[in-house]
Amino acid sequence: AEVKKIAVIAGDGIGPEVVAEAEKVLKRTEELFGYRFETEHALFGGIAIDEKGTPLPQETLEVCQSADAVLLGAVGGPKWDSNPKELRPETGLLGIRKALGLFANLRPAVVFDCLKDASTLKPEVLEGTDLIVVRELTGGIYFGEKFRRETENGQEAVDTCAYNVSEVERIVRQAFEIARKRRKKLASVDKANVLETSRLWREVVNGIAPEYPDVELEHVLVDNCAMQLLRRPSSFDVIVTENMFGDILSDEAAMLTGSIGMLSSASLGEGSFGLYEPVHGSAPDIAGRNLANPIATILSVALMFRMTFGYADAADAIERAVADVLNAGHRTGDIATDKSQAIGTKEMGDLIVSAI
Amino acid sequence: AEVKKIAVIAGDGIGPEVVAEAEKVLKRTEELFGYRFETEHALFGGIAIDEKGTPLPQETLEVCQSADAVLLGAVGGPKWDSNPKELRPETGLLGIRKALGLFANLRPAVVFDCLKDASTLKPEVLEGTDLIVVRELTGGIYFGEKFRRETENGQEAVDTCAYNVSEVERIVRQAFEIARKRRKKLASVDKANVLETSRLWREVVNGIAPEYPDVELEHVLVDNCAMQLLRRPSSFDVIVTENMFGDILSDEAAMLTGSIGMLSSASLGEGSFGLYEPVHGSAPDIAGRNLANPIATILSVALMFRMTFGYADAADAIERAVADVLNAGHRTGDIATDKSQAIGTKEMGDLIVSAI
Ligand SMILES: CC(C)[C@H](C(=O)O)[C@@H](O)C(=O)O
Ligand SMILES: CC(C)[C@H](C(=O)O)[C@@H](O)C(=O)O
Repeated sequence: AEVKKIAVIAGDGIGPEVVAEAEKVLKRTEELFGYRFETEHALFGGIAIDEKGTPLPQETLEVCQSADAVLLGAVGGPKWDSNPKELRPETGLLGIRKALGLFANLRPAVVFDCLKDASTLKPEVLEGTDLIVVRELTGGIYFGEKFRRETENGQEAVDTCAYNVSEVERIVRQAFEIARKRRKKLASVDKANVLETSRLWREVVNGIAPEYPDVELEHVLVDNCAMQLLRRPSSFDVIVTENMFGDILSDEAAMLTGSIGMLSSASLGEGSFGLYEPVHGSAPDIAGRNLANPIATILSVALMFRMTFGYADAADAIERAVADVLNAGHRTGDIATDKSQAIGTKEMGDLIVSAI
Repeated sequence: AEVKKIAVIAGDGIGPEVVAEAEKVLKRTEELFGYRFETEHALFGGIAIDEKGTPLPQETLEVCQSADAVLLGAVGGPKWDSNPKELRPETGLLGIRKALGLFANLRPAVVFDCLKDASTLKPEVLEGTDLIVVRELTGGIYFGEKFRRETENGQEAVDTCAYNVSEVERIVRQAFEIARKRRKKLASVDKANVLETSRLWREVVNGIAPEYPDVELEHVLVDNCAMQLLRRPSSFDVIVTENMFGDILSDEAAMLTGSIGMLSSASLGEGSFGLYEPVHGSAPDIAGRNLANPIATILSVALMFRMTFGYADAADAIERAVADVLNAGHRTGDIATDKSQAIGTKEMGDLIVSAI
């Protein structure tokens, strides 16, 4: 098989540990399915600040640009939280998204059977919840002009939120395509009763909708969506929205499943290139102690196989292996009901590898 | 007693019905406590568009400006949803907030005992939830410059989010004061890892915090707050945030209590003037059918008594009357377990009036 190049960014906190388990999975699928991967490690986030003086070193960007996909662990931690902007892990994250043109962030929020009870929602409300938030990732208020100026009322800070028609079109098309392959329901979220960018957003959505007559479209105001996610989570299929709203709603959606430690995400650009990472953070408090749950990162590999490489067989096998290991009762501390029975990061990784 | 002038804006949908019950309550407290109110009705929202050609007629604004407080029912409905911006109810809402200088929106999210089961959250998670979102209401992206321009990628829409030090100071001080009178915990919500306005916000909060050493302060990122509201709602006391984040988070917080049909809100400016309204909307589907629940509007009167007039005795009496009527088992359709036993808007109003 063709060699696929994967840039591996372990990052900070538990990142290196969970990524190590995902790499075991990569190796095992090579053996079993005959696929061939070449991994290249690169520094990013806090560790890159410490070692290279910048969260996104030029060589890291080059490693990613010459790869077919990127696997990211997690970045950030209190150590860098009060650094100036250029020396913060988040700045690297925004930089890599922009530099790699990753305009579509896909965050599936599904409920894992064995974690049903972990949600704070009632089981009957949660039942059947399986949605995906498609978040625009390289535009909006995240990347608009930002500055301070003096006014008679003291210093003023300004952020600018801008979207042009092409930016909205590509993410909305992406969302319609995804909906078409799922339950064919799309909720477009905006604040069109207040924002000009939302009115443009809605116009573009309505312009594209006729191309997808098979997809049922609804427009939902962002405040109402924050409520409806709580009230009727299972009624959503695909939610598409702009960058800032997507940040908030995808976290709300992930949390309500109770499965946040198990969720993977994809950030895609034009073509098949993608960056894959767990939804959870770098959890500095448990870092380096073999306590982290590697499943979200392992499932990020499965997502990479499916979306970037088209290796559905291997993706299926990984997902089945995870299910088997969970069904057999194995748990890391974060998802264990009986903590004394919990296994470590490495042990969980090994069990999944043998189950593939 | 001094005559207090109350501008009454019934608005659209169920607005007139719920406001009528609140006015009965006003009358009853006059009789019982010797207070004196002069009410003046004014057109606003959809009905004002229909009858006066604008959502916020000048005379309505004048009625409000010459009053001590405003009682608002609800505005909006599908009828006006596709109108041009100047002819939409929301535009009137933003206009009245700005014109009256109502910079602080207070939305308490509490769980009513009789509605505990109405929440989609597990009772043990909800237990003890009693928080208030203090939302900045006259600044930020809602009121910044908005425009379209042509670019090589098609039309571009722009919204501007701006905050100056004074705007942040007054809302943050208000929040600290409220926290001081409650459980002394303040969560300031921002997106300081991305937005310049949030960095200014956080600086101002940290600058004011030393004046309130008795209040425990935490900074929470908005995405994390959307999660924590779901995970640990009862741990929050006062949440203060900017306009757009407050719109989203206050609706999420209200919905998780399961009591959204019962929640009142206050919008305050400098001094004691305030606008009081139920959190729920205009519910056009049930309008004019004596089906709406008037309790949130009646409790808005109690809030007005407490916050604008300092009539704690009457406020207590109203709140106690509501509790008594609910404890006696009376329910409107929205909160009834057995819908066939539900009573109407007027009947609920009458029961509360007699219980005061
Ligand atoms: C760390 C932060 C800049 C980032 C974002 O807001 O996009 C994070 O919250 C996320 O959702 O990936
Ligand atoms: C109707 C709309 C403009 C308004 C807002 O966003 O402020 C509403 O959602 C609210 O919260 O009062």
